[in-house]
Amino acid sequence: MRRSEVRAAQKRAAAMFDQIGIALTPEERSNIEVAGFGLGNLDSQGLELVTYINNDRYCAKELVLFPGQTCPEHLHPPVGDDPGKTETFRCRFGIVYLYVEGENAGTIQAEVPAGSEAYYTVFNEVVLHPGQQYTIPPGTKHWFQAGEKGAIVSEFSSTSRDEFDIFTDPNIKRMPVIEED
Amino acid sequence: MRRSEVRAAQKRAAAMFDQIGIALTPEERSNIEVAGFGLGNLDSQGLELVTYINNDRYCAKELVLFPGQTCPEHLHPPVGDDPGKTETFRCRFGIVYLYVEGENAGTIQAEVPAGSEAYYTVFNEVVLHPGQQYTIPPGTKHWFQAGEKGAIVSEFSSTSRDEFDIFTDPNIKRMPVIEED
Repeated sequence: MRRSEVRAAQKRAAAMFDQIGIALTPEERSNIEVAGFGLGNLDSQGLELVTYINNDRYCAKELVLFPGQTCPEHLHPPVGDDPGKTETFRCRFGIVYLYVEGENAGTIQAEVPAGSEAYYTVFNEVVLHPGQQYTIPPGTKHWFQAGEKGAIVSEFSSTSRDEFDIFTDPNIKRMPVIEED
Repeated sequence: MRRSEVRAAQKRAAAMFDQIGIALTPEERSNIEVAGFGLGNLDSQGLELVTYINNDRYCAKELVLFPGQTCPEHLHPPVGDDPGKTETFRCRFGIVYLYVEGENAGTIQAEVPAGSEAYYTVFNEVVLHPGQQYTIPPGTKHWFQAGEKGAIVSEFSSTSRDEFDIFTDPNIKRMPVIEED
């Protein structure tokens, strides 16, 4: 991703935090993580993150999804003695369409990103409005998409080791590569 | 504490959540925990809590302090294999005066609750404004007080086992006893 695209996404995410009154430090604002997953279409498949704390016991992040933006399907595998990340998503703003392993309801409310249909395989639908939350056990495939206003989600979890996440789409690179403009 | 006092404090805490736009489910609103610590003066020494998740790996809560309200000095001891709770306080609203073990700055900005001076022994001051946070290691004595507008604090932590907390004041009972009116 180009530096200018990262900066624009940071600005857009910061405006959403401002809109709902989530306070960030100046350092947090200027370091918002922009994950495009190496797919080259951030508005379709991407995620913006602020990590408040990630130590060897727990992690807390704020996730931003732009309108219709999708965090692609992945799971958190065991790493050493860790059985894999357990995570709780709590919707703070907007609507989140979350899909996990389990029964497929037939039709779903999200739209699978065009061209990536082969890499979306779990369709057990959980819809989260503000104040609602859902906990995902380790090793469980999941993906999620924001509704038309975008979404802000608090993530409470065990330790994050994002670099070990396993994505269904083999083209995905989780850790960002930023090209200077 | 009497049921009517609990209900009044729940209503007051819920109004503060509404004020800053933190969404709760109806169940969460009606189950806000009101901790008076058995001291009979909730406005002076007390805390209101919503626990979003507390599993065997991590915990996330929202804490409410009314204007000038103080959470009394305590620590989180080891419990079995657990070295004791590590916790991160992130200020969301208001000002929090937090005191932990370490250097005493001389004068502090909070007011120690009258009549309980003997039970406040750590005075290393950390002032948290919205967006600022501080992480407290296990086994570390700490207490905190809200400024004049009250405060809302997100707590991210390892597993909470509140019943094992050790308070400096031997008169304190952490787990509430509610008397029906």
